[in-house]
Amino acid sequence: MALKWSAEQVFSFLREEFPQALRDGVNYEVVTLQPGEAHIRLLAGEQQLRPGGTVSGPAMMEMVDFSIYVLLLAHHKEAARLAVTTNLTISFLRKPQPGPIVAQIKLIKHGRTLTVARVDIISETDAKLVASSEVTYFMGGI
Amino acid sequence: MALKWSAEQVFSFLREEFPQALRDGVNYEVVTLQPGEAHIRLLAGEQQLRPGGTVSGPAMMEMVDFSIYVLLLAHHKEAARLAVTTNLTISFLRKPQPGPIVAQIKLIKHGRTLTVARVDIISETDAKLVASSEVTYFMGGI
Amino acid sequence: MALKWSAEQVFSFLREEFPQALRDGVNYEVVTLQPGEAHIRLLAGEQQLRPGGTVSGPAMMEMVDFSIYVLLLAHHKEAARLAVTTNLTISFLRKPQPGPIVAQIKLIKHGRTLTVARVDIISETDAKLVASSEVTYFMGGI
Amino acid sequence: MALKWSAEQVFSFLREEFPQALRDGVNYEVVTLQPGEAHIRLLAGEQQLRPGGTVSGPAMMEMVDFSIYVLLLAHHKEAARLAVTTNLTISFLRKPQPGPIVAQIKLIKHGRTLTVARVDIISETDAKLVASSEVTYFMGGI
Repeated sequence: MALKWSAEQVFSFLREEFPQALRDGVNYEVVTLQPGEAHIRLLAGEQQLRPGGTVSGPAMMEMVDFSIYVLLLAHHKEAARLAVTTNLTISFLRKPQPGPIVAQIKLIKHGRTLTVARVDIISETDAKLVASSEVTYFMGGI
Repeated sequence: MALKWSAEQVFSFLREEFPQALRDGVNYEVVTLQPGEAHIRLLAGEQQLRPGGTVSGPAMMEMVDFSIYVLLLAHHKEAARLAVTTNLTISFLRKPQPGPIVAQIKLIKHGRTLTVARVDIISETDAKLVASSEVTYFMGGI
Repeated sequence: MALKWSAEQVFSFLREEFPQALRDGVNYEVVTLQPGEAHIRLLAGEQQLRPGGTVSGPAMMEMVDFSIYVLLLAHHKEAARLAVTTNLTISFLRKPQPGPIVAQIKLIKHGRTLTVARVDIISETDAKLVASSEVTYFMGGI
Repeated sequence: MALKWSAEQVFSFLREEFPQALRDGVNYEVVTLQPGEAHIRLLAGEQQLRPGGTVSGPAMMEMVDFSIYVLLLAHHKEAARLAVTTNLTISFLRKPQPGPIVAQIKLIKHGRTLTVARVDIISETDAKLVASSEVTYFMGGI
């Protein structure tokens, strides 16, 4: 299933429709974007850090939710607006090193109504897996 | 197990140590706080809302994480700083009505190293359950 | 939403269609069954026990899955055959005492396509919560 | 961290200590076993099948729990007996084809007290991912 929007088109939509996801100090960059997969980097701002300069748990959860939404928008354009997260589970494995983190998303099921994505969060500084998440999206509203 | 800190003492600690959890526009109020249980209300600010005025999923996940941390601080004082979330799972059941939401937390296991909490998020406007979450905390650092 | 089948009708269907769920040594009893809720007791056989006479984790997971299916059959009759488990999460909190365990099921969302149930597993011997589970069912096939 | 037991030693221990995990009609085979990873095949018996010859959800959950225990035994010998599952989450993505299924286990965190494993269940017939699971083990008893 080919992508319908580029990263630029997705972010242009988000800036219009969900400006709070891209508020001051929250800087996401799309590293790669292809059918069923994406890598998205977060350069965390002050509000997303814990003492010691590591990214907070809630910032990682927000990043997971955001990253999958980017991928669904790239696949379905504004029709992805109907997608709602029905379940998110995340395991925090180790504290990230200070520096950027990257969410590596992969759709492991991409059905007509249910989509399941697996997300690995990697600390770029030492290339270690810091969190493992799985998210279910339902197309059609809950 | 009696509480060692009041809500005021917990928030005074948080304002010192985790000011970003209580940043501008994020207003939490402790409704009730007792051994093993707490109700915490969120009056969401602009950044936490989605179009239509409903609280966003990431704001609810942050609220869950925050609420349990409040309860652990009340139980253990600053020793709870060692507590780390190891797993969080949340199901989004229905869109909340515009207005405040309340996290009702209950510790279903409070062990020496592992604590498990169940959190119901209720939309105050219509008293409906909007999300159901379970969180595991590990005392001692991951 | 009223129930369409009694416990007897549900078990009669199961004996026909899923005899392996009720195989030798797996004895389930319906304690209560009402709209949106059920209590189901397991008198575990040898194969479901661990040394010390406590019920095994896999036996509890099977019980959770079975119990919700009983409740969905009571609600929807054989149409529930289309229901498939899409996600199951379970936390094991403490080892059950030897003796029966009871699954207390509650539907926290009962939509047209998605149903979410919460299940508490209680050790009857000491009335303690031994496991906490949440299950999502999708009506319509995955 | 090198393995301390071979597959033969693990199964010899299991036949002694947990004969019910290897009861009649439940046939597991170790395909590969190495530090931090294992592939384990299930040739399901009658009791583990649903109409149509596909492996049931509870049989897959049991397989996940069993497979990780095999890997922990290989790593820690009988000391793994202290390991208890604290959380298991599984998403069922598609119905497996009739035929063997394989659990591909990978430890994504292997700490002194907490171990987290990711398990992919693959239908051997068409090489498709049928279920995705994550399990947390706690060494030391809950």
